[in-house]
Amino acid sequence: MQSLPFYPKGFRSCAKNVGIRDTTLDFTVIASDVPAAAAAMFTQSRFCGAAITVGREHIVDGQLQAFVINSKNANVATGEQGLANTRDIVQLVADELQIAAKDILPSSTGVIGWQLPMDKMRVGIQGIAAEMRPEQLHVSAHAIMTTDTRPKMRACRIGDAVLVGMCKGVGMIEPNMATMLAYFMTDAQLAPDQLKQCLNEVVNLTFNMISVDTDTSTSDTVAIMANGLAGEVPLADFKQAFLAMATDLARDLASDGEGATKLLEVTVEQAASFEQAKTVAKSIVNSPLVKTAIFGLDPNWGRVAMAIGKCQQYTDILPEKVSIAFGDLLVYQGQALGQDKLEQLTAYLQNSEVAIRVSLGTGDASATVWGCDLSYEYVKINGEYTT
Amino acid sequence: MQSLPFYPKGFRSCAKNVGIRDTTLDFTVIASDVPAAAAAMFTQSRFCGAAITVGREHIVDGQLQAFVINSKNANVATGEQGLANTRDIVQLVADELQIAAKDILPSSTGVIGWQLPMDKMRVGIQGIAAEMRPEQLHVSAHAIMTTDTRPKMRACRIGDAVLVGMCKGVGMIEPNMATMLAYFMTDAQLAPDQLKQCLNEVVNLTFNMISVDTDTSTSDTVAIMANGLAGEVPLADFKQAFLAMATDLARDLASDGEGATKLLEVTVEQAASFEQAKTVAKSIVNSPLVKTAIFGLDPNWGRVAMAIGKCQQYTDILPEKVSIAFGDLLVYQGQALGQDKLEQLTAYLQNSEVAIRVSLGTGDASATVWGCDLSYEYVKINGEYTT
Repeated sequence: MQSLPFYPKGFRSCAKNVGIRDTTLDFTVIASDVPAAAAAMFTQSRFCGAAITVGREHIVDGQLQAFVINSKNANVATGEQGLANTRDIVQLVADELQIAAKDILPSSTGVIGWQLPMDKMRVGIQGIAAEMRPEQLHVSAHAIMTTDTRPKMRACRIGDAVLVGMCKGVGMIEPNMATMLAYFMTDAQLAPDQLKQCLNEVVNLTFNMISVDTDTSTSDTVAIMANGLAGEVPLADFKQAFLAMATDLARDLASDGEGATKLLEVTVEQAASFEQAKTVAKSIVNSPLVKTAIFGLDPNWGRVAMAIGKCQQYTDILPEKVSIAFGDLLVYQGQALGQDKLEQLTAYLQNSEVAIRVSLGTGDASATVWGCDLSYEYVKINGEYTT
Repeated sequence: MQSLPFYPKGFRSCAKNVGIRDTTLDFTVIASDVPAAAAAMFTQSRFCGAAITVGREHIVDGQLQAFVINSKNANVATGEQGLANTRDIVQLVADELQIAAKDILPSSTGVIGWQLPMDKMRVGIQGIAAEMRPEQLHVSAHAIMTTDTRPKMRACRIGDAVLVGMCKGVGMIEPNMATMLAYFMTDAQLAPDQLKQCLNEVVNLTFNMISVDTDTSTSDTVAIMANGLAGEVPLADFKQAFLAMATDLARDLASDGEGATKLLEVTVEQAASFEQAKTVAKSIVNSPLVKTAIFGLDPNWGRVAMAIGKCQQYTDILPEKVSIAFGDLLVYQGQALGQDKLEQLTAYLQNSEVAIRVSLGTGDASATVWGCDLSYEYVKINGEYTT
């Protein structure tokens, strides 16, 4: 298990197996030694999990002291009992760590429609105060995984401060407010309002721009705690570092998309608005026909044209003004550029990252989104991810 | 090749190979002996094919005399040359059959981004007047196929009149105005306005309610010719027969969806509006996670909850008022109904048709949509459908 090069001051964590489903890591607590400024964004799903309901209540005052996360069970569609269970878990952890329950943000991820095994969880939570240690955040990145093939974490320095980020999620991924689960911890000193605005800007350019399968999770959460132990840092520096880290993590999520063999990056330029650019880019990155063509190394760029075309709401998009390129290889510019491009495109598709660039010719806005190809393995994973 | 039990009077057709891509049937002409009242609906794709552009011009006066359809090449993203080629084909057929070019509705379906092989097409069209015969419409249903595994056609009687319908399309199917290609021929006598309204109503409840892969074709066309040779029929009878036939054909399309092993029928009831019911039903039928679970016989109904939840625009949908059933098996009603349902659900999923019924509890509107599961074969077909 790889550790991080450095850790923010004043954060401790533990990660363990409490037996929710099997014997792998399924439970983690990440806590700050002191109450921290905090911000969070959640799924907009109408079927959100119990943890989301509780998390929304607890983030209101812009202060948190701990994240409590279980994998293997999403605690979604579990009614009043499910909600009571989440509140119980939060209270048990609060009692253990001697912090306020309202300063805990809970998350659950995994199967939908099952009650949490509360007896096992109670036993697992007992005594965790003694298990909390600094410099083991990287173990938490393992504990939050479901069908992820690898942990996703990053660390960087901003002056004297350190920012650490981790996330999970490889399926049911088309975040509309945040990705499945992503957590950031920093010892920089930032006000809750600054954090909130920062998080909003960063999420909208990163986690909200990825899609593995168009399915929006019931458990999406991205949250950040800033405990201030390293003092102030320039806000612009912090924002820049945060954006860069979130972009890397968003790409990590997309490239580890269920069954993915390739990372797809779609950039739409010369669009009438950011919204138009994003909508067209999402249409391309989400098209099963585009995704299977890329998996199959099929130079069928016509499917990109189809995916642009199905954004029917934009009557200002005219095929004669559109161009389509893969990497630097232009294949369509108002019309097909000839069949000799197909051989070059087939060669380009061998890359593990495929960049599709579209120019709409309707304005000067642009957007970049990330996704992955659609493989046999996606079908296998999701046909067999049995309840 | 199976023939139809009866044919409408005054329609002749031919179907042949003109060598567009291989040696299978790839070209067909269906013509009425006399000019016919006609109506048509087309894709709303911004990247629509040349045939759509010409078809839109020709349907304006509510009169047609022939459909001219080629498969294996969609003539999309082919610029001015592509448009000129479609006009040439229409004129060649008009000259051959001695009918007006403006009374011909052309269609092209197949690969995007290639010019039609005009030399071969000119040779193929020569002499077709002599090949046009009555009572061989069923051969046309073969000639319009691309990756379809079987022809889709129906015939019925309405009094003395006969209505015949055929369609094709198994991928790039989420019609927004019409499905890929569907043609109806009747000898009933109907006014163009009646036909137009009838077509609109029927298409919105049938072809616009199916989705194989969320990808909207660049070539969607559904058209009907009524040549009046059998005289008048009661409009209500005609509409009823037309709706029933279009429903059957829409289900045929969905169940032959690329790689499909099962037909999915999703009905959403007790919704606030038809639009809400349709949106939620489409969200379910289009969810890759729902589709793969059904392919894998996984009783993971939580994914249906997820797909309802991601319709975030409907804040009136409350999980505690929702119920979810598979066939007659209720699995969720405000909360999960227990894990003993899972075994029964696994058994139910063995059926070749899977019916998902959701009640939203927000009103009294309903909608039914059709789709199919997502299998290895879908990935295979579309990773290998090489340009």
